Amino acid sequence: MATPTSITPINTFERVESRVRSYSRSFPKVFDRALGATIYDTDGKAYTDFLSGCSSLNYGHNDPDLKAALIEYVSNDGIAHGLDMFTDAKEQFLASFERLILRPRGMKHQLQFTGPTGANAVEAAMKLARKVTGRTNIISFTNGFHGVTLGALAATGNGKHRGGAATPLSGVTRAAYDGYHGPEIDTADLLERMLSDPSSGVDAPAAIIVETVQGEGGLNAASAGWLKKVQALARSHGALFIIDDIQAGCGRTGGFFSFDGMGLDPDIVTMAKSLSGMGLPLALTLIKPEHDIWKPAEHNGTFRGNNHAFVTAAAALEKFWSDDRFMSEVGEKARYLGERLAAIAEDHGLSTKGRGMMVGIDAGSGEHAAAICKACFAKGLIIETSGSFDEVVKVLCPLTISLEQLTAGLDIMESAFDAVLGSRRAAAE
Amino acid sequence: MATPTSITPINTFERVESRVRSYSRSFPKVFDRALGATIYDTDGKAYTDFLSGCSSLNYGHNDPDLKAALIEYVSNDGIAHGLDMFTDAKEQFLASFERLILRPRGMKHQLQFTGPTGANAVEAAMKLARKVTGRTNIISFTNGFHGVTLGALAATGNGKHRGGAATPLSGVTRAAYDGYHGPEIDTADLLERMLSDPSSGVDAPAAIIVETVQGEGGLNAASAGWLKKVQALARSHGALFIIDDIQAGCGRTGGFFSFDGMGLDPDIVTMAKSLSGMGLPLALTLIKPEHDIWKPAEHNGTFRGNNHAFVTAAAALEKFWSDDRFMSEVGEKARYLGERLAAIAEDHGLSTKGRGMMVGIDAGSGEHAAAICKACFAKGLIIETSGSFDEVVKVLCPLTISLEQLTAGLDIMESAFDAVLGSRRAAAE
Amino acid sequence: MATPTSITPINTFERVESRVRSYSRSFPKVFDRALGATIYDTDGKAYTDFLSGCSSLNYGHNDPDLKAALIEYVSNDGIAHGLDMFTDAKEQFLASFERLILRPRGMKHQLQFTGPTGANAVEAAMKLARKVTGRTNIISFTNGFHGVTLGALAATGNGKHRGGAATPLSGVTRAAYDGYHGPEIDTADLLERMLSDPSSGVDAPAAIIVETVQGEGGLNAASAGWLKKVQALARSHGALFIIDDIQAGCGRTGGFFSFDGMGLDPDIVTMAKSLSGMGLPLALTLIKPEHDIWKPAEHNGTFRGNNHAFVTAAAALEKFWSDDRFMSEVGEKARYLGERLAAIAEDHGLSTKGRGMMVGIDAGSGEHAAAICKACFAKGLIIETSGSFDEVVKVLCPLTISLEQLTAGLDIMESAFDAVLGSRRAAAE
Amino acid sequence: MATPTSITPINTFERVESRVRSYSRSFPKVFDRALGATIYDTDGKAYTDFLSGCSSLNYGHNDPDLKAALIEYVSNDGIAHGLDMFTDAKEQFLASFERLILRPRGMKHQLQFTGPTGANAVEAAMKLARKVTGRTNIISFTNGFHGVTLGALAATGNGKHRGGAATPLSGVTRAAYDGYHGPEIDTADLLERMLSDPSSGVDAPAAIIVETVQGEGGLNAASAGWLKKVQALARSHGALFIIDDIQAGCGRTGGFFSFDGMGLDPDIVTMAKSLSGMGLPLALTLIKPEHDIWKPAEHNGTFRGNNHAFVTAAAALEKFWSDDRFMSEVGEKARYLGERLAAIAEDHGLSTKGRGMMVGIDAGSGEHAAAICKACFAKGLIIETSGSFDEVVKVLCPLTISLEQLTAGLDIMESAFDAVLGSRRAAAE
Repeated sequence: MATPTSITPINTFERVESRVRSYSRSFPKVFDRALGATIYDTDGKAYTDFLSGCSSLNYGHNDPDLKAALIEYVSNDGIAHGLDMFTDAKEQFLASFERLILRPRGMKHQLQFTGPTGANAVEAAMKLARKVTGRTNIISFTNGFHGVTLGALAATGNGKHRGGAATPLSGVTRAAYDGYHGPEIDTADLLERMLSDPSSGVDAPAAIIVETVQGEGGLNAASAGWLKKVQALARSHGALFIIDDIQAGCGRTGGFFSFDGMGLDPDIVTMAKSLSGMGLPLALTLIKPEHDIWKPAEHNGTFRGNNHAFVTAAAALEKFWSDDRFMSEVGEKARYLGERLAAIAEDHGLSTKGRGMMVGIDAGSGEHAAAICKACFAKGLIIETSGSFDEVVKVLCPLTISLEQLTAGLDIMESAFDAVLGSRRAAAE
Repeated sequence: MATPTSITPINTFERVESRVRSYSRSFPKVFDRALGATIYDTDGKAYTDFLSGCSSLNYGHNDPDLKAALIEYVSNDGIAHGLDMFTDAKEQFLASFERLILRPRGMKHQLQFTGPTGANAVEAAMKLARKVTGRTNIISFTNGFHGVTLGALAATGNGKHRGGAATPLSGVTRAAYDGYHGPEIDTADLLERMLSDPSSGVDAPAAIIVETVQGEGGLNAASAGWLKKVQALARSHGALFIIDDIQAGCGRTGGFFSFDGMGLDPDIVTMAKSLSGMGLPLALTLIKPEHDIWKPAEHNGTFRGNNHAFVTAAAALEKFWSDDRFMSEVGEKARYLGERLAAIAEDHGLSTKGRGMMVGIDAGSGEHAAAICKACFAKGLIIETSGSFDEVVKVLCPLTISLEQLTAGLDIMESAFDAVLGSRRAAAE
Repeated sequence: MATPTSITPINTFERVESRVRSYSRSFPKVFDRALGATIYDTDGKAYTDFLSGCSSLNYGHNDPDLKAALIEYVSNDGIAHGLDMFTDAKEQFLASFERLILRPRGMKHQLQFTGPTGANAVEAAMKLARKVTGRTNIISFTNGFHGVTLGALAATGNGKHRGGAATPLSGVTRAAYDGYHGPEIDTADLLERMLSDPSSGVDAPAAIIVETVQGEGGLNAASAGWLKKVQALARSHGALFIIDDIQAGCGRTGGFFSFDGMGLDPDIVTMAKSLSGMGLPLALTLIKPEHDIWKPAEHNGTFRGNNHAFVTAAAALEKFWSDDRFMSEVGEKARYLGERLAAIAEDHGLSTKGRGMMVGIDAGSGEHAAAICKACFAKGLIIETSGSFDEVVKVLCPLTISLEQLTAGLDIMESAFDAVLGSRRAAAE
Repeated sequence: MATPTSITPINTFERVESRVRSYSRSFPKVFDRALGATIYDTDGKAYTDFLSGCSSLNYGHNDPDLKAALIEYVSNDGIAHGLDMFTDAKEQFLASFERLILRPRGMKHQLQFTGPTGANAVEAAMKLARKVTGRTNIISFTNGFHGVTLGALAATGNGKHRGGAATPLSGVTRAAYDGYHGPEIDTADLLERMLSDPSSGVDAPAAIIVETVQGEGGLNAASAGWLKKVQALARSHGALFIIDDIQAGCGRTGGFFSFDGMGLDPDIVTMAKSLSGMGLPLALTLIKPEHDIWKPAEHNGTFRGNNHAFVTAAAALEKFWSDDRFMSEVGEKARYLGERLAAIAEDHGLSTKGRGMMVGIDAGSGEHAAAICKACFAKGLIIETSGSFDEVVKVLCPLTISLEQLTAGLDIMESAFDAVLGSRRAAAE
């Protein structure tokens, strides 16, 4: 029986909130509290969170150390909003980021805090690439997702989002992602052919922007070899190489950057989602010094100095990225997760997608995937889909999830696949 | 003498942060604490804040009630990030907004939480207007500022920001703001002439977007009569009427909306800046129900559910907008502020700009205005400029500032004007 | 009685030709022969031509000298089509144009033969202005007409034509033409205000393109003073000044160029229509040498060397522009024409429009104008309308028309105005 | 020794004509007369024309019957220019085109006469496709050439021409032409993959526009199978299928349309070049009746009724397309031409390109091709290159050329290849 407390707020939402709302349709409960990998509705029911704010909560909900740092900061009247003035909170984040992330990798990138959305970081990257090169064409990939503001949206592949513009999107040439045309065709070669032909009709690019794993696009993971070819293409054609690490970064695929260890050297990197560590809005565009040709305030935004987020972001860097322990734990969890998904997929004749802890199963159709997610939610697991047809059931649990909770969540997933698709294994037994 | 503690972090900023940073150039100190209208640097020096995060801190820094609400919420593991899922924090904000803001005004607008930047709220408004009308042309005004992402930037007037795109901006027709061509010319009539002429070359618009007071554009304030003509123009030409209330709203000009009491009925209203009450990132697009034709998730964004901001925003609504007291206090302060500015302006043969507590003095040139602001900062007052040539010294103090602190700040301003421009009054004495 | 021969071809047209056809709807006869200012239908009925191919037949139909030159050229197997190779026909045209047109005016412009349509000449001009300045924004005027290909169409004001693009038109900012906002407002001042304000939102222009008399836009004639201000604006803002002389040039307003004697010095001039003298397709873009930075073939087109047109164009230059006689005759005719139109207009409380022999009467509404033209056609006069609402009855008779035929045509016009609008004069008598 | 007569005009050109001129650089002589496949310079030297106005002179220069028809028409004061009014010359062309071209093929297309350039016909086609579908994206192919006005230029592949716009070109998605990625990859499949994926980022197209043989792009010839797949793709995705037959049509590849006998059924066909039969400017957009939704005059143009061209075009249709003789002769010549080119190519280890009498040899590099053409010109053969790197020596002789003259021209070509590349055959002997 639904209690009055749960009924009233939902009516409020339905009465007052725009119909653009989406996740609340899949998970029609009101939530009020969350800790680690668990989120609670107002009836006190606990759910395991395999969505994690679409990879914005890699360290889980309300990590006690981050939370403590934030409470202390607020209690002391730390500056919440300071435009882009110097604050000690920002300084500490900058220092931690420089020491723990940039220096160990030999990166000399400058940090631009944009308006605190991933889309804004992407817009800044695209604008800057155009400024640097004096060219306007930007190459992005099939199934890429880079945000829904007009500049970023042109680079995004999803047709529903593109249609939302209600005006033609321009300035972007679409190329096929790694593996898009099947294993026989190296799509980097297709792109090279076009870029090398002065009469192809593909204008010399300002930049090539790519996700190493396409989160919204269906957990397509590019190989290091392909990414290196694409980077080399950018270099040889005078274009900037931009990695959009908004969803795949911050440990999701193992390293801090999704491209760690691949031998890549992007000119620009965009970050957001888990950067603040606690889900607070924060976005960042990393720029090689030689490309940092912005005039002061040329790209601005009121909330480009979210100091609360600086506090939790610095705390997260210090806690999780001071040594290799976290990365090593994530690696182990990723192995286990991968094995479990492979087993589920195999049992149903399906295939797995993704890399690290950004993995899923192609359920064969959007209908199947939706039914599986619905069955999971009924059993207390929050999980969502992605892909061109929403056909991929996507696991984006907190990286800090305990093995027990991960196992329990995967058990729910497994039973949901069985319930929706039938189980060969079960049938065989 | 600069202390080592202040030197080191500034070096960090200079070493690591992109040169796009701006306000830190005017106020080259590191700040660490703020309360009400006062902000402190790491040396403990106090500054009066006449900038207020460009009107993002209308209720001052770290209002004790808002702060308490936030600390309690975080302490209880309230959900920080929930994408656009239902949360109790969001529900309470929705309920307060409906009860205290919408209902008393007879407004039935739906609330869309966009990515938490003003630009994102504007992008959503522009996209929606195009969807609703099937047209693409949007009319915006000279000196308007609506953000720097590609769609919003097309509507923004500022040449430096526009140049940052490094690609042509399209989809917007520019019209002259109220008073732009002098007092003799009614610019609404000019626009009407163009819209009524099928051969003018100005395509039928999807929307007209306007600020009632142009904060970045130089504190130009439109009259109610002009705004009503523009709204009528939109209606008669099948266009949506959008008020961008991001900087002028939330009490800055007296009422909650800057257009309160003007007899206007906008189809869409964009809000951000002071909406969260504490400077936390939050943005909102208010949409008349008949225009709320979004498909679920058609315009999305990871941080569109900033629950910390919902908590403080709801607390701010309840504290400041439950009755008329705050509005009445702001009105009195605005009168005093207006008189003081008028006196300063008169003494120097200058003119005042703006409305309510969004006012300033046209210092005659950007050089003069910059020198005045610099002199203010040296005496502990943070204040900035706006306008086509950065020629307007702009007072955006917290609305909650005490009369004493306001007076002290204005005294500093007055002496800075005197120091830079010389004083007729002083000379006459 | 319609004869079978006239019925059949009309059926052919209706059966086979696209519904885009237009003038054949106003003049639903099949024409087969034309001489001077007279055109004959297949029934042998003669019509006086006050349309002249929209000013493409300024020297009348089949001028005997031009016709003889063409027949001789064709008979001798003169080259009809030579791409843009050197031909003697082109050389003679170039030499005549240089000697008779450029040198006497001290013009050093280079001649670019574009694809033989006015739109193509305009496209070349717009592209070149963008190349020269490195800017993309082009300023054009209300009610301007510059062609319907995508680049030129963006500069054209007419809403029906713009709608034909079925995609947003970009790259052009619209400014108000001379007199557009009434006699009290100098629209050049409005434009100057916008261009001088770095925050107006009007980007620095590559060019300002203007017709001295707007043929399609309603015979609006700009004053020399206004045109000089606009040219000065272009100069001071680093933009090219382009005069589109396609309809107003070639003697239509008295001089060879419509801007002769105005003290103007356009960077680029576009020509077409009457350039070939006999109505053959020919278009020309005149470019100051310092702006002629085209790479070979950068703007090309198969028919950019219409040698038949070169032959008749050179013959026309030699016949009509070797001395002042023709210009003087046109001046006299224009005076007579102007007086007659003024009388008709006055009798009906209407006003005249235009300049030289590019003049008409604003009939007050498109309905009246259409009825008047229909009544004219019934009496053997071919005449058309222009203007935002097709409200201007437009006289574009051949400049070579005899005074007798001109008088007869005007008599028909006068009676048509009387028949449609009633005559005060007649009533008073 | 250059004679004074040849020196003077060249000086005129150099002094007065824009540097955009191109073919006159390859063939720096002044020409004054031409007949059949022969063109004469002012010194009386004869050249064989293997360029034919880039396929605008398929029936040769000054065909006696076409010339006689034109002289008779002009002598009788036939209407030269009539905007788009009904004329008997147009009627006869319409009737001939309907009887000889449309009806035998079961085509019911409506004829739109656009401004007389191929680019204008393409602009009309693109605009109409956007109007019909309510979509804006148009798919065109690598190495395609469709003209240089802004709309058509977006569909053109050539980088030099695209750069001439000096502004970003939009509204077109580029796809790979048949064979572009080598024989192993069916590029129609690549396109299908993108169009079938709602998240590919390629928006649903208004049209797919294709040349069956890419004249400017390097004589790439698409197979019937590939074209049928592309047409099927257009149909299944709700897009119009447009064949740009401007260069390949009018007998150049054997049939009147280049797609005759391929089982294709294009929604729109664009024509120009050889349509008038004598090189006079004429362009045509053929539209299926159900797509002919133009409003009257929505796409217009002063010279859309070039009656001289109607006269010669009708005469050409009657002379060459009343029966199969011409087509059969062209077929035989094409076979001979193909064999000769194959032999030359084989001797130099090169490959042939193209189809029908639109064929050439890939000389391996632009330098080689240029040297070969220069050597040909020195021996009295006018011939040009095409391709991404101008590497293809292209034979576009008149289809009416005698076997003797064709043989002589090919002999010159052969010796030029030998001279530039050396001859294996000669060396072996």
